[in-house]
Amino acid sequence: MKQVKVSNNVIRRLPRYLRKLDELSENGVDKISSRQLGEQLGLTSSQVRQDFNCFGEFGQQGYGYNVLALREQIAGILGMDRGFRAILIGVGNIGRALMENFCFDDWGVRLAAAFDIKPALIGTEYKGVKIYSMEELESYLENNQVNIAVLTVPKAAAIPVTERLTAGGIDAIWNFTNVELTEPNSSTIVENVHFSDSLLSLSYFVAERCDEKAAREEQ
Amino acid sequence: MKQVKVSNNVIRRLPRYLRKLDELSENGVDKISSRQLGEQLGLTSSQVRQDFNCFGEFGQQGYGYNVLALREQIAGILGMDRGFRAILIGVGNIGRALMENFCFDDWGVRLAAAFDIKPALIGTEYKGVKIYSMEELESYLENNQVNIAVLTVPKAAAIPVTERLTAGGIDAIWNFTNVELTEPNSSTIVENVHFSDSLLSLSYFVAERCDEKAAREEQ
Repeated sequence: MKQVKVSNNVIRRLPRYLRKLDELSENGVDKISSRQLGEQLGLTSSQVRQDFNCFGEFGQQGYGYNVLALREQIAGILGMDRGFRAILIGVGNIGRALMENFCFDDWGVRLAAAFDIKPALIGTEYKGVKIYSMEELESYLENNQVNIAVLTVPKAAAIPVTERLTAGGIDAIWNFTNVELTEPNSSTIVENVHFSDSLLSLSYFVAERCDEKAAREEQ
Repeated sequence: MKQVKVSNNVIRRLPRYLRKLDELSENGVDKISSRQLGEQLGLTSSQVRQDFNCFGEFGQQGYGYNVLALREQIAGILGMDRGFRAILIGVGNIGRALMENFCFDDWGVRLAAAFDIKPALIGTEYKGVKIYSMEELESYLENNQVNIAVLTVPKAAAIPVTERLTAGGIDAIWNFTNVELTEPNSSTIVENVHFSDSLLSLSYFVAERCDEKAAREEQ
């Protein structure tokens, strides 16, 4: 049973556990201790146990976790068995890269349709997904179950398209636009993918490394 | 002055502050209080002050922060003024999307070269960046300052290419391959971009929302 409020840090670690368990199972590993799992992910065994305790009892004292069973439980917690459906808005470079390379199905999400404004694209299919005109967005949302909108439009379109999506009752936006969409009073769930945040964190650590090197050389 | 060890959460918030300050400055705002800045980012004012205190005194009691000055200080902390240079390995969909749409220069990083194995690409330029053969990787690393490798190769190539990069003395890898590269004993800094982690966190929140709705309807 899901507890009421699990910390954001725990939620962010769940997909990492899932990937690691997939990898272990591919390598024929069928059980693992919290210590071993932690070691492979740079976490302590007590952190691993605490994370899973948020959702109930998973392992067995002294035996460890059954890899496949734990994988299924985490997949369930992450909503991968809910049959969520997504649409993608903006079939540009990043939109196409996602449609071509990102296996939505592997993560339990069905990419059901794409939308664009370019007349040449409308009515065509890309990687098995039909591309609709942006004018059809509202009627599509009215007539189909859509949980997640993947937002891959140019910056200038980010806010107006978000307004149309929220007016259309969308639950969640997976935002690749680099535009901050979060409004304090909006009930829409927004997950931002900011490549720059990731690069800048990396840059921070590189700078720190350079400073450490310089300090060592000064000594 | 940078303090020795700043928590990962603080480091992850710095790029968000930077983006917000850029936005404020574009909108003509020249000073802002910690309370206002926090409100716009969903943080408390004391969290904002604590974050900046990790790096020294930034604001002035009762006056707030000068937007441009704070922006410059954060940019400096993030290493944006260090002249870091990057190479991109793997000019496929995601590699091309980054080369076309991601402004490395805006974040203080110079994308100096790209590498691929496809003969048709080698020797050509894409968006002003020359594409080299993978065979030239080692000699390029030897003869040029490279701080960051952007890894956009297919999954199967992720580990072998990483081994060549670390052997070549690279500081940091920006990893788009969905393959876990982190080795406990490696000194290479790895920043993983896992689209699936982001989608699954979103999926978790959508599932939570669904459960809350269902619980309300049962009452």
